[in-house]
Amino acid sequence: MYSLNVRDHFMIAHSFTGEVFGPAQRLHGATYVVDATFRRQELDSDGLVVDIGLASQQLSAILATMNYQNLDDHPEFEGRNTTTEFLAHQLYLRLVDAIRRGKLGPAASGLAALCVTLHESHVAWASYEGPL
Amino acid sequence: MYSLNVRDHFMIAHSFTGEVFGPAQRLHGATYVVDATFRRQELDSDGLVVDIGLASQQLSAILATMNYQNLDDHPEFEGRNTTTEFLAHQLYLRLVDAIRRGKLGPAASGLAALCVTLHESHVAWASYEGPL
Amino acid sequence: MYSLNVRDHFMIAHSFTGEVFGPAQRLHGATYVVDATFRRQELDSDGLVVDIGLASQQLSAILATMNYQNLDDHPEFEGRNTTTEFLAHQLYLRLVDAIRRGKLGPAASGLAALCVTLHESHVAWASYEGPL
Amino acid sequence: MYSLNVRDHFMIAHSFTGEVFGPAQRLHGATYVVDATFRRQELDSDGLVVDIGLASQQLSAILATMNYQNLDDHPEFEGRNTTTEFLAHQLYLRLVDAIRRGKLGPAASGLAALCVTLHESHVAWASYEGPL
Amino acid sequence: MYSLNVRDHFMIAHSFTGEVFGPAQRLHGATYVVDATFRRQELDSDGLVVDIGLASQQLSAILATMNYQNLDDHPEFEGRNTTTEFLAHQLYLRLVDAIRRGKLGPAASGLAALCVTLHESHVAWASYEGPL
Amino acid sequence: MYSLNVRDHFMIAHSFTGEVFGPAQRLHGATYVVDATFRRQELDSDGLVVDIGLASQQLSAILATMNYQNLDDHPEFEGRNTTTEFLAHQLYLRLVDAIRRGKLGPAASGLAALCVTLHESHVAWASYEGPL
Repeated sequence: MYSLNVRDHFMIAHSFTGEVFGPAQRLHGATYVVDATFRRQELDSDGLVVDIGLASQQLSAILATMNYQNLDDHPEFEGRNTTTEFLAHQLYLRLVDAIRRGKLGPAASGLAALCVTLHESHVAWASYEGPL
Repeated sequence: MYSLNVRDHFMIAHSFTGEVFGPAQRLHGATYVVDATFRRQELDSDGLVVDIGLASQQLSAILATMNYQNLDDHPEFEGRNTTTEFLAHQLYLRLVDAIRRGKLGPAASGLAALCVTLHESHVAWASYEGPL
Repeated sequence: MYSLNVRDHFMIAHSFTGEVFGPAQRLHGATYVVDATFRRQELDSDGLVVDIGLASQQLSAILATMNYQNLDDHPEFEGRNTTTEFLAHQLYLRLVDAIRRGKLGPAASGLAALCVTLHESHVAWASYEGPL
Repeated sequence: MYSLNVRDHFMIAHSFTGEVFGPAQRLHGATYVVDATFRRQELDSDGLVVDIGLASQQLSAILATMNYQNLDDHPEFEGRNTTTEFLAHQLYLRLVDAIRRGKLGPAASGLAALCVTLHESHVAWASYEGPL
Repeated sequence: MYSLNVRDHFMIAHSFTGEVFGPAQRLHGATYVVDATFRRQELDSDGLVVDIGLASQQLSAILATMNYQNLDDHPEFEGRNTTTEFLAHQLYLRLVDAIRRGKLGPAASGLAALCVTLHESHVAWASYEGPL
Repeated sequence: MYSLNVRDHFMIAHSFTGEVFGPAQRLHGATYVVDATFRRQELDSDGLVVDIGLASQQLSAILATMNYQNLDDHPEFEGRNTTTEFLAHQLYLRLVDAIRRGKLGPAASGLAALCVTLHESHVAWASYEGPL
């Protein structure tokens, strides 16, 4: 299996609901350094997993819908805790949608899986990986 | 599959038995930067893979049983080479035990797998991954 | 000149005032991974730049006064843009104060300088360095 | 499953054919920081995944056949785009061959899988993983 | 003294002249991960060392003049070994020129110094620092 | 001022004397990832700060005198706490001596300063910098 990874980041505010979160129930924020890892069984005819330029652009475009925002005000996330692992899944869903709409080029239809990892500090990260 | 990772470290002395180890047969030591990666299929009701606070505390408590020690004097490791990969497995076993005894909270019963990685330098690391 | 560095992190929300900040004028947030670098000309009688345990505790205690908070609500920062470079200086001032009050031990009076660096992402950081 | 990783690097020139590559069609180059990750189900009798000394030597020897070269002049790669993902597979094949020829020691016959990752910058990497 | 750093990268081919370079006399290449560190004594009226958006854009624009190129064909570098340390100085000169022409905004006239660091692998980097 | 850095590592056992060290008074160990940073005002006639091959070899040779050892048994360190900052200075002294004996080549006589940094974990490092 081949994998190709591109990295970007976004910066948001949010708060959590539930005693388990302790002080993180207060409004605070995070920088998320995001790795999008695309997987496929065989390379395409150009010798690629995916067009790295398109992959970077689409990742950046998706992050721009959340970047420099308070996620507590995001209608899509109402009633949800926007934990690192939850956001990893949300970005996975948005990238899968972009792939299906052809935004990463026609060869991206040959992708087998996608993993999205969010690094929230030098000691913690979370990811979601699923098939395509 | 979701994953969540917490990082900590410990510093030990040890020596190895066997010609394959060359100069590492002498008493020396290592810093191990440890990643504990918890995996589960679906998030719990708080939107979490695991309570990151409890996970960090338990990892730290387990590392404390080896930290600042000469592993050659550790009764549990008698007759064993405490290689990086062996220690990764040992920490996996201890974290699995903590999960089963409820130390990472009741929701941790939904975890699917655990990977423990020990970084021993900027050029080498080892890990053990197993189901839960 | 000797230097010794300890690392920790904190996670905050804030917004900026001024057109130069573009989308960062909105309420957003950041993870700051903090390096506190202590410098001195000669080691103390224990062979240390500073007691690393006390240095880590004091850094953590100072970060706790901002961690998981919205800095826009912090009285001390009223009317100020809490940029990365501004916060580096603020943490420098608080650490200098802790050193002067003896919180890092008596030997810390021999420190010559302090640098505080805040990493806000994988591509940007800021620092403040000053004498002691 | 156990894993053990060793890291090295090589520096090459190359160019790509195909409009998808944009400016990378021109002769340019890259530093590839290479991670070779060896996997096995059970440790060998020394408590090892693989002899880390032999693994490092063989990885270095294989990289030396490409290091400080223009890959466009490499007969083996004629007519192929030497993309990061393609090179990851090539290094996988060469390491598999070395394992089969006994270059990583007799215990290496117990290895289960190998993953080769090439980091081409702070924001992009590619890998190939296959069984042994 | 305050510092602010932005990071980017470029990928080039080149060769060196002189026996000291050994195999690097052959045409090869490198990825350079570039840190541009801007320093000033006091923050500007917005609480900034420099407008990070403009700084990133100018660094990217300067790197674009070398990115995906064979530096052996660059007229400006004729007869020079484009070593990592030489290139760090070249990028310093180009950034100083951009600052003087106002490309980083009027407040950038208050900058005191600039350091440019080129990371060529996980084990080697070079930098040039000079006043402004 | 130009700087050039090479990185290597060594792994040792040791113990400390003095209550300030707490549990580190016990025999334990560390991996030290070492950065040797060479500085000079002007590049040599090859466009170099120092011959990177010779610098790497000498650093490795110096580390080999301590690597895989118990520093408590090292006659040179008798009665001294081999703290990270102390060892940074020791490596500085040994590298300065190597430079003076011509081991880094004749052009190394033009070096202006040397900084040696020892990374002992992902959260702590120490360094010594001095003139040449």
